[in-house]
This record gives sequence, C-alpha cells and structure tokens, in this order.
Amino acid sequence: MKVHRMEAFSDGILAIIITIMVLELKVPEGHDWKALAELAPKFFSYAVSFVYIGIYWNNHHHLLHTVHKLNGKIMWLNALLMFSLSLIPFSTAWMGETSFSPTPTALYGVTLLFAAIAYSLLQKAILNQHAPDSAVVKAMGKDLKGTLSILFYLIPIGTAYFSTLVSCFFFVLVAIIWFVPDRRIERALKNESEISLAKD
Amino acid sequence: MKVHRMEAFSDGILAIIITIMVLELKVPEGHDWKALAELAPKFFSYAVSFVYIGIYWNNHHHLLHTVHKLNGKIMWLNALLMFSLSLIPFSTAWMGETSFSPTPTALYGVTLLFAAIAYSLLQKAILNQHAPDSAVVKAMGKDLKGTLSILFYLIPIGTAYFSTLVSCFFFVLVAIIWFVPDRRIERALKNESEISLAKD
Amino acid sequence: MKVHRMEAFSDGILAIIITIMVLELKVPEGHDWKALAELAPKFFSYAVSFVYIGIYWNNHHHLLHTVHKLNGKIMWLNALLMFSLSLIPFSTAWMGETSFSPTPTALYGVTLLFAAIAYSLLQKAILNQHAPDSAVVKAMGKDLKGTLSILFYLIPIGTAYFSTLVSCFFFVLVAIIWFVPDRRIERALKNESEISLAKD
Amino acid sequence: MKVHRMEAFSDGILAIIITIMVLELKVPEGHDWKALAELAPKFFSYAVSFVYIGIYWNNHHHLLHTVHKLNGKIMWLNALLMFSLSLIPFSTAWMGETSFSPTPTALYGVTLLFAAIAYSLLQKAILNQHAPDSAVVKAMGKDLKGTLSILFYLIPIGTAYFSTLVSCFFFVLVAIIWFVPDRRIERALKNESEISLAKD
Repeated sequence: MKVHRMEAFSDGILAIIITIMVLELKVPEGHDWKALAELAPKFFSYAVSFVYIGIYWNNHHHLLHTVHKLNGKIMWLNALLMFSLSLIPFSTAWMGETSFSPTPTALYGVTLLFAAIAYSLLQKAILNQHAPDSAVVKAMGKDLKGTLSILFYLIPIGTAYFSTLVSCFFFVLVAIIWFVPDRRIERALKNESEISLAKD
Repeated sequence: MKVHRMEAFSDGILAIIITIMVLELKVPEGHDWKALAELAPKFFSYAVSFVYIGIYWNNHHHLLHTVHKLNGKIMWLNALLMFSLSLIPFSTAWMGETSFSPTPTALYGVTLLFAAIAYSLLQKAILNQHAPDSAVVKAMGKDLKGTLSILFYLIPIGTAYFSTLVSCFFFVLVAIIWFVPDRRIERALKNESEISLAKD
Repeated sequence: MKVHRMEAFSDGILAIIITIMVLELKVPEGHDWKALAELAPKFFSYAVSFVYIGIYWNNHHHLLHTVHKLNGKIMWLNALLMFSLSLIPFSTAWMGETSFSPTPTALYGVTLLFAAIAYSLLQKAILNQHAPDSAVVKAMGKDLKGTLSILFYLIPIGTAYFSTLVSCFFFVLVAIIWFVPDRRIERALKNESEISLAKD
Repeated sequence: MKVHRMEAFSDGILAIIITIMVLELKVPEGHDWKALAELAPKFFSYAVSFVYIGIYWNNHHHLLHTVHKLNGKIMWLNALLMFSLSLIPFSTAWMGETSFSPTPTALYGVTLLFAAIAYSLLQKAILNQHAPDSAVVKAMGKDLKGTLSILFYLIPIGTAYFSTLVSCFFFVLVAIIWFVPDRRIERALKNESEISLAKD
C-alpha cells in the first residue's frame, strides 16, 4: 500500500510536470501564422520533453511493480528522480526560448543525463531487494539500454557547441530507443510467478 | 490495473489542463466593470474549452472501460490524445487574447481537429481488440458522431478567414453534439454481458 | 465506481484551484517587511478563498456520498460547479491586486454566489434521486444554510460600493457559517441505514 | 475511507506545491553558463524546499495512518498545514529572487516555523484520539524532534539579519534531522498490533 501511495504521488508530480511545460508556449505577440511559426523551436522542445516524461512515467510504473518492500533509500531515490525530472520544464523552456543555443541545448542534455542517473540508482536499489539469482535481477542486471542511453546523453552535451542539430538528433534517438516499454521486467516477473507456481 | 493507472494519469493531466486555462484570465489593468468586460473574448474561449475538456474526460472514461488489455499502441495513442489536448490552453489563450483574430481562431479549430483525430485513432486501436462481430464493435463501428465532428472542425478552420463568428458557431455546435455522453458504449457493454450471461 | 471517478476528478481540480491561487502572491519588488506588507490584501484574499475551497471540498464530499446513480445531469451540474469554482482564483487575484476596489470586491461576491447556485442545483438534482419521504430528503429539503448563504452573498455585492470592509465581513461570516461540515447528510444517511436494518 | 480521501487530497496539493516551485526558475535572459549561474540562489532555494515538502509528504503519510476517526478538528488542522505549506513556494521564490536578503531569508524561516506548528497541532489532535497509555502516544508523546526543529527554525529567523549563511545552515540542518522518516510511529503501530494479537 505504501508503494501504491508513492506511485500515486509520483504520478501526480509527473502529470503536473508534463502539463506545466505547455505554459511556456506563451501566446505570441502577433496574430498570424508567421507569429506562430516563431514558436516552432519551443513547440519541438515541448514535444520531445512530453515524450520523455511519458517514457519515464511508463518505465517508472514497470519498475515500481518489482519493489518488494519500500524503504527510506528507495523513497529518497524516487524523490531524486522526481527532482531531476522537475528540472526538465526549465531546460526545455530555455532551449526553446533561445532557439537551440549551444549552452541551453547542452543543459537539456545534462538534465536528461541527471534524470537517467537517478533512474539508474533507483533501479539498482530496487534490484538489491531481490536475490542475485532471481529472474528479475537476471533480466535487469545487464541494463544495456540504460547504460547506452547515459552514453548517448553525453554525446549531445558535447556536440551542442559544434552543432545543436546533431544534439537534437541524439535526443530524439534516445527517445526512440526508450519508446518501447520495458518488457524485460514484465517477462521476468511472469517467469518468476510461473516458477513459483511450478514449485507448489 | 494498468488501465486503471493510465486512466488516473490521464485524469490528472485533464484536471490540470482544465484548470491552468484559467491562469490566462489575467487580472485586468483597471478596476471597473469596463476593464472586466474587455476580458469577454477570453472568458468565452475559456468556457468553450472547459466544456470540450469536460466532454473528452467523460467520453475518454467510457472508452477506456472497453479496453481488454493494455498494450504499447493504446498507451502511446492515449499519450498522443493527451498531447493534443494539452495544446488547447495555448490556442484558447491566443484566440481570446487576439479577440478572435482569423488565424488564432483557425488554429483553435486545428487543435480541436488534432484532438479529434487522436481520439479516433485511440478508439480504433481499442476496437481492434474486440471480435469484429462483438456488440461493442457493432455499436461503435459506424462512428457517425466522430466522423461528423471531424468534418465540423474543418468548416470553422476555413470560415475563420471570412467570419470568426461562424467559426465560433461551429465550435459551440460540435460541443453540443458531444454534450450527451456516449451511451452507445454503455448499451453495447450491457448487451454483451447479457449475452454472455445467457450463454452460461 | 463512476461516482468515485467523478469525485477523484473533482478533487484533482479543487487541489489545483486551491494551489494555483498562491501563484498570484507574486514576489514583491523590494526585500524588506514593508514590501511584504503591501501584499497584505492579496494574502487576506488568498486565505479567505483557501477556506472557501476547503469548505466546498468538504461539503462536496458529503454530498457525493448521497448519489444513488450517476447521470448526465449530475455530471454536468458538477462540471458547472467546478467551472464556477475555477473562477475564484481570478476574482481573488483581482480583489487582492486592487486592494479591495469596489467592483473587484463585488465580483468576488458574484463568483461566490455563482458557485453557491451551482452547488444548490447539484444538490437538488441529487436529492431528486431519493424518495420524497426519505431521510436524506427530509434532512436536506429545508436547506436553510444554503438559502441563507445565497442571501448573504447578495449583501456584500451591494455594499461593495459603499464599504468593501462590510463586504469582507460578510465573506468571512458565510465562511464561518459553512465552516462546520454538513452533518445533516451524515446523520440522515445513518438514520436511513438504521431504518433499513430494522426492516430486515 | 474518509481518511483515504483526505490523504489523496493532501497528496494532490503537495504534488502541486512541489512542482509549481520550479515555475519560479524562470528562463534567464542570456544563453550561456554565466546566465545560468545567476540562478544558483533560486536553484538552491528550490532544492531545499523540495526536500522539505518531500519530508512533510512522508511524515504526513505516517501520521495519517494513526488516525482512528476523522473529525472536523483534524480536517481543519490538516487544511491549516496545507495552507502553511502552500506559502513555501512564495517564500522560496522571494529568498531566491533576492539572493538571500535578510528579510526574505527570515520569512522563509517563518513559513517553515508556521508549517511546523501546524503539523505539531495536527499531531496533537490525532494523538488525543488514542488512549494515554497506548503505544502510539507513548512513542510520540515526547516529540523531541518536533520541539527541536521548532527551536531550530527560531534561530535562523534571528540570524538572518547577521548572516544569512548561518540561517541557510540551519535550514539544511533541520532538513537532515527530518530526512529519516518517522519510524517511531511505525514501530509503535507494529507493537500495538502485536499486543492486540497476543491478547486474542
């Protein structure tokens, strides 16, 4: 039940994060399509961040389902994840406002990296609750996608000073990698319950 | 249970969308009724959008009740619907701010159209889970109201450049068409459960 | 279950309404107590509105527990109540911003009146579901407090042009009248269940 | 069930409070790291307040689990707590905006103190529902941490006029003291259920 409440609280925060980003799409001065077109960088930033928060919401949901028992460490790592995600509206707005200036684009990568590290730490703390030979740990242990995406955030941070277009390419690439929900956990949990059923 | 969480998350987003729109009703400069009267276009825009989000909330609720099993496609089409609805506060504010200028009024129609298409795709993906001869599919298959309202959004987008009053008339008309909750689904679900009871 | 979801959705909206009001407490220009003191009218307006939304949340909760079956009318009257309450942050901000100018103060009364009428209509629609001789209807039928508060909102709207202090007195007075949750419903429901138990 | 709804409503408010604070991290004028560095005081204020709201969320959760029966007093003391916490985004923004000027820093301490007193009153009202010799009362009776932190809020309010750095030290210190969730209640509740089991 405590896990349930932490999940509901996190969901509330994620729903607010995803929605307040649209507040940065401020009404333009003019009233023609040209005025609207100037919002394109902001709109693109918003769309990318929307997808990222959606992905985090989805994977976070899968991850929390593997929690055996809530403890202080998991709670505060979850809070760290929420904190890092709460910075995304800010870096999204800055990147959009400056039409992809190098530093804001790099900062956007930094906030994504920060969130990825927080997620990774949370995942590790949850896996520590499982036996090292459990199906969940076996499935999640080699977190290729997680490691890969951390690397893929480092690249756009660097390239931002040469070409923010390349950086944006990587932001979209990682989003696509994560787009598919994390079936590893689902499968592992299913296997585990089948094994325990077979034992009975 | 996963459907339940997606529903709760969507509800959270819808509750925030419906409420942040009121933030655009910015306190007027003056302090008399005249200053307030100048907010009339914004207020009207807000009221119409409030009704639309309310309608989406209601029909979305009915629709999700027909989901057999949540999959990635349904989840992301739901996210697309949320994304399109999240743009309504922006277009509402622009239309109100410019006192129904042609382009902002047309854009308002475009966002409504975008949301209607997203809803339609989500509905189709959910219906694909049901047998082609099931009561739900039979009832929902000929989605007259959905098709009609997509057409009815195209008209005000065009008329905005001649008369935004006509456009507003259509925005209100579609709202009235959708006002009544979608009883087709309720009836079909009821029939289906009666049929399955009869078989037992 | 549908009532439960409408309640959750309303709660979400109320939580957002109550919280976004604080966004109007904008950071003052200066950085001393004098700068802060200038926010006093805004702070007072916020505090009063916070209490009102809290009261509505509480009584709304009691009221929804008497709903037998959700229908379209109840849903849309509930939406009307949410709409009217969503205007309170605006009128609160205007009243505070203008340090209780007559018109903004009168408008604050008008929004409270609007909300009270919406609540009253919702209550009537819900009571219509009960038998005329049921304990709930008997208890709620003579809605003295509701009628009284509608009257008490009319007075400060009028007095605002002579003395906004008198208006504020009435705003606080009605808040005090409603402060105590509506025990009538609780008692009536309890009696009803006792009667039905006695019959069995 | 009523406790459950009050908890859900409080959670909603807390999720919004924690998230709207990030709206104060306004996009800087420039687009380099220097422009970002100027946000440091705002960022630090946000981070500290995030931790405080997180702590309140956590302890509030533990506290509500000891509620026997919801009454008007508990509900309104809970509303008072929510009101006091809703002022934190304002004082956080003012403190950050002025780069820790004395008065805003003192006010930040005042809002924390206000919240601590509200929490303390709520705790007392809930403990009054338990027998004086119950395990919960015994465990919570000597609320050393609560008393200590009220004292520790008074110090930074005073020191703000000499050194806001010292004040910040105390804000962080109290956060660390509270960081660990309140296990006293958990333990006491566990003991109580064990005792009642032993009696059976």
